Amino acid sequence: MSQPTVNYDILSPVKFIVRSAMVFPDKTAVVYGDIRRTYSEFFERVNRLASALKKRGIGKGDKVAFICPNTPPMLEAHYAVPMIGAALVSINIRLSSNEVAYIINHSDSKAIFVDNEFADLVAPAMDQLEKVQTVVNICDISADTPLDGPDYEAFLAEGDPDPMEIEVDDERQVATINYTSGTTGLPKGVMYHHRGAYLNALGEQLEFSTTANSVYLWTLPMFHCNGWCFTWGITAMGATHVCLRKVVPEEIFRIVAEEGVTHLCAAPTILISMSAYATEHKLSLEKRLEIMTAGAPPAPTVIQNMEGIGANITQTYGLTEVFGPHSVCQWQPQWDGLSDDEKAQLKARQGVPYIVAQHMDVVNPATMQPVPRDGQTMGEIVMRGNNVMLGYYNDPEATETAFAGGWFHSGDLAVMHPDNYIQIMDRKKDIIISGGENISTVEVENVLYRHPDVMEVAVVPVPDPKWGEVPKAFIVPKPGSSPTAAEIIDFCKANLARFKAPKTVEFGPLLKTATGKIQKFKLREKEWQGRDRRVN
Amino acid sequence: MSQPTVNYDILSPVKFIVRSAMVFPDKTAVVYGDIRRTYSEFFERVNRLASALKKRGIGKGDKVAFICPNTPPMLEAHYAVPMIGAALVSINIRLSSNEVAYIINHSDSKAIFVDNEFADLVAPAMDQLEKVQTVVNICDISADTPLDGPDYEAFLAEGDPDPMEIEVDDERQVATINYTSGTTGLPKGVMYHHRGAYLNALGEQLEFSTTANSVYLWTLPMFHCNGWCFTWGITAMGATHVCLRKVVPEEIFRIVAEEGVTHLCAAPTILISMSAYATEHKLSLEKRLEIMTAGAPPAPTVIQNMEGIGANITQTYGLTEVFGPHSVCQWQPQWDGLSDDEKAQLKARQGVPYIVAQHMDVVNPATMQPVPRDGQTMGEIVMRGNNVMLGYYNDPEATETAFAGGWFHSGDLAVMHPDNYIQIMDRKKDIIISGGENISTVEVENVLYRHPDVMEVAVVPVPDPKWGEVPKAFIVPKPGSSPTAAEIIDFCKANLARFKAPKTVEFGPLLKTATGKIQKFKLREKEWQGRDRRVN
Ligand SMILES: Nc1ncnc2c1ncn2[C@@H]1O[C@H](COP(=O)(O)OP(=O)(O)OP(=O)(O)O)[C@@H](O)[C@H]1O
Ligand SMILES: Nc1ncnc2c1ncn2[C@@H]1O[C@H](COP(=O)(O)OP(=O)(O)OP(=O)(O)O)[C@@H](O)[C@H]1O
Ligand SMILES: [Mg+2]
Ligand SMILES: [Mg+2]
Repeated sequence: MSQPTVNYDILSPVKFIVRSAMVFPDKTAVVYGDIRRTYSEFFERVNRLASALKKRGIGKGDKVAFICPNTPPMLEAHYAVPMIGAALVSINIRLSSNEVAYIINHSDSKAIFVDNEFADLVAPAMDQLEKVQTVVNICDISADTPLDGPDYEAFLAEGDPDPMEIEVDDERQVATINYTSGTTGLPKGVMYHHRGAYLNALGEQLEFSTTANSVYLWTLPMFHCNGWCFTWGITAMGATHVCLRKVVPEEIFRIVAEEGVTHLCAAPTILISMSAYATEHKLSLEKRLEIMTAGAPPAPTVIQNMEGIGANITQTYGLTEVFGPHSVCQWQPQWDGLSDDEKAQLKARQGVPYIVAQHMDVVNPATMQPVPRDGQTMGEIVMRGNNVMLGYYNDPEATETAFAGGWFHSGDLAVMHPDNYIQIMDRKKDIIISGGENISTVEVENVLYRHPDVMEVAVVPVPDPKWGEVPKAFIVPKPGSSPTAAEIIDFCKANLARFKAPKTVEFGPLLKTATGKIQKFKLREKEWQGRDRRVN
Repeated sequence: MSQPTVNYDILSPVKFIVRSAMVFPDKTAVVYGDIRRTYSEFFERVNRLASALKKRGIGKGDKVAFICPNTPPMLEAHYAVPMIGAALVSINIRLSSNEVAYIINHSDSKAIFVDNEFADLVAPAMDQLEKVQTVVNICDISADTPLDGPDYEAFLAEGDPDPMEIEVDDERQVATINYTSGTTGLPKGVMYHHRGAYLNALGEQLEFSTTANSVYLWTLPMFHCNGWCFTWGITAMGATHVCLRKVVPEEIFRIVAEEGVTHLCAAPTILISMSAYATEHKLSLEKRLEIMTAGAPPAPTVIQNMEGIGANITQTYGLTEVFGPHSVCQWQPQWDGLSDDEKAQLKARQGVPYIVAQHMDVVNPATMQPVPRDGQTMGEIVMRGNNVMLGYYNDPEATETAFAGGWFHSGDLAVMHPDNYIQIMDRKKDIIISGGENISTVEVENVLYRHPDVMEVAVVPVPDPKWGEVPKAFIVPKPGSSPTAAEIIDFCKANLARFKAPKTVEFGPLLKTATGKIQKFKLREKEWQGRDRRVN
């Protein structure tokens, strides 16, 4: 069954905009600085983009890359490209020029749309981009068109505002290709199908309780899992998208107040900088702000700090490969009576599968048997179902490995608590094995976040002749403080099993991915230089 | 694609209980009088029922009928029966014995479960029920087992509480068969597929904004479109079902207060009796209660009265054939500033398609062309998509007629407003054609609801030698009032085009279906007795 009939319709997230343009023609769909566009204007621009692409010979099976911050064209691409049966490739704007060129080529992109601030990422590689036939400059901060092609508005003018036919023949057709964050190595091209994107877009709204009255701020990059499918889900609800070019705390707090923002998503690192900014400026939120956080483990103190200024934090967990969040730390009514500390510990768990996700477990990856539900035994998190990718683009081998045994392997190590909540202990690649004992770097970091002088921290294994590996902490101190290594180590010894305390400490900034994740593999890389293995 | 793989899972509403039993094992799932069952207890009972059915040889493709008010066994059936690949047939408890026997036979039911209060409906027909092999008594108001079979609890004891395998091979397999209300004739057996039930169950939650904290009262019969799919949707959210045997205002108000009910669904007739009761007892609601109403046109005054006591009314519209509600009168922010009267007028529209429904239009049924969006031209409401039935059970001819032109024909006449909101004018079978002019019986009724002495009203065509047909009003006066026919007719002439005013008025109770709909066809029947046609 693939063609629509009286009682079968293809599930596609593109259809949400068709409905919202009909139901909410005059409601504000997109806000960006002074720009305010209604749903019918938003839809017209989408149709223009789709038809302009078709006029350039782009259609079924083609790939269209966008290198663009969270501005309106990026949102428009999420409808226009899949609508014509093509796949959207949204590229991380903080990658290097080489990496961007790699992704454009690897994805076989036929057209590229580049925000002019980021033209430098593409310009030097232009002659290596063999498949690219159409280049468009997105002019936002200036009118410059540094690349050889029209500006975005002129390109839209080539198109037609009338509703286009949606050319999706099968709900399991590719809608987008999203490259992973590159936290653990080279990014992989994850293929999203329309069915999964539709279901997860609605699934996010069910878990996050948005309504048509919600005002959603784009703090999360849209190039990250299509903004965890909120690019589609917010439109489905007929809520308002507030675009944001620069994700910095002063802007976030200003816009939250000015636009009456009700919901936003952000990686923990954004929460850290938001709460540091709020403390410094003695700010608090005027009305309750719902924040969904995922992408890296948020330490309990980070959650507590943000709730202290009036936010409500929902932690979710997922990966690019599963369309973004797949589990949620669902609040239980019986937790209401607990102390703030206990609540924060519980809120730091990665939780239970989404309503639309359903299948997630922690297993021994060798046997695929579930680990005991004891909150102790570590295993790998695996998932399956409608929100698992089709596979890695042009990488059948990696796909096969990832799908071994009929489940998707996350590479994340976790325990299963007796109440069926999972809690991540570490990434498989980050865990420290010291004298035969596992040390969860996340556990050590969570303790360090409680130290009054620590703003941000990463713990990685370093080689040790006696123990094989031992933990080392990399620390960004809070502004104005200067803790010593000995203080840090003593703090850990007082709050953790002694063997888990870092043996050494280094102060200074941390390397991060564009989605705000600390690249531990780069820290490790440095520490293990000159060795041929990265474990001992 | 039908078998589950790493990235494909069958959409089935049965799976919601598996997740909620895992995520909310100790949360209250079902309340009924003194009974309070957690999600794990609810799930155990479902598994017992499913495995007991299998032990009796009931499985794939079989039909299981329930004749039961809104008590816990009815809810359990919604999971246990489709779980084993069988189809649930929930039968209206207010039908006659003949009608019940007709449905049991027509649906080929192999097992019947009968609440002992309603055993009389089945007992006389027992020997005509050729396919029935298993009979179970549901003992609620007493321990009597009037039919020849075990009581429900003994039957559950035959089963096993361990999780059963879900035997659904294809998401478009039949999950339930629901007979239509019989408002316009003999009930038809509407086949629901798992995919549509899954999507509409979630769609209802998106439109009605329920969360895990919601407390849902079962005022709507579960035998009506599986309770508009809330039997599954409330479970999906991990919210609480409050069962209710007798849908009477005193019970509703008592339980709303005692259990902290946040949401309920009800046909307009229930709202009429609720607001009459509230007026009489000078009641108002302590906290906001969300009410979804559908099934018949709610007059603006009915909505206003209920909102006057603190409810928020959302009108939706649908049919058994489309899994219950398919459109919603979506509130627009720009309506906030209007007068109460204008708001009530807008709230009385049937609105726009659901997020998950998408395809609904008003067309000229002869040409299938959409009517002009002028709020004036009448046409038939048609729908298509994932929330349309598979067809009528064992009635390919009626199915073909209903699906003519690739759309489902609702039999409802409506106009399309310029803002894309539909408004129902009448059922095709009820509209009055008087001297060549259409008279919407709904429009006349809405005016009559504004008369201070009118509690409930139905307008039907009666034969007239000069005009062909003319309107007649059947009226239930408010307690303690006794309006005259002349007063009623004058009121209409003052508030409507004169030719639309009823020519005659009759006072007294109205015949209703079990879903609370006035059976106009029975009123018409009486008026047209002795004639061989029902139109002039
Ligand atoms: N709530 C969370 N708590 C802990 N870790 C999380 C959470 N959410 C996501 N993560 C981490 O993020 C990972 C998914 O991130 P993403 O798909 O963006 O790319 P990446 O895994 O960081 O990069 P790459 O796969 O290229 O190395 C998960 O595997 C997990 O390690
Ligand atoms: N919000 C609403 N406003 C007006 N009418 C409504 C509304 N919701 C439902 N209806 C009416 O109810 C009908 C669907 O009801 P249902 O499927 O329960 O059976 P029925 O049509 O009343 O019975 P039968 O098909 O056996 O005659 C619609 O066709 C429509 O006429
Ligand atoms: Mg990864
Ligand atoms: Mg009907």
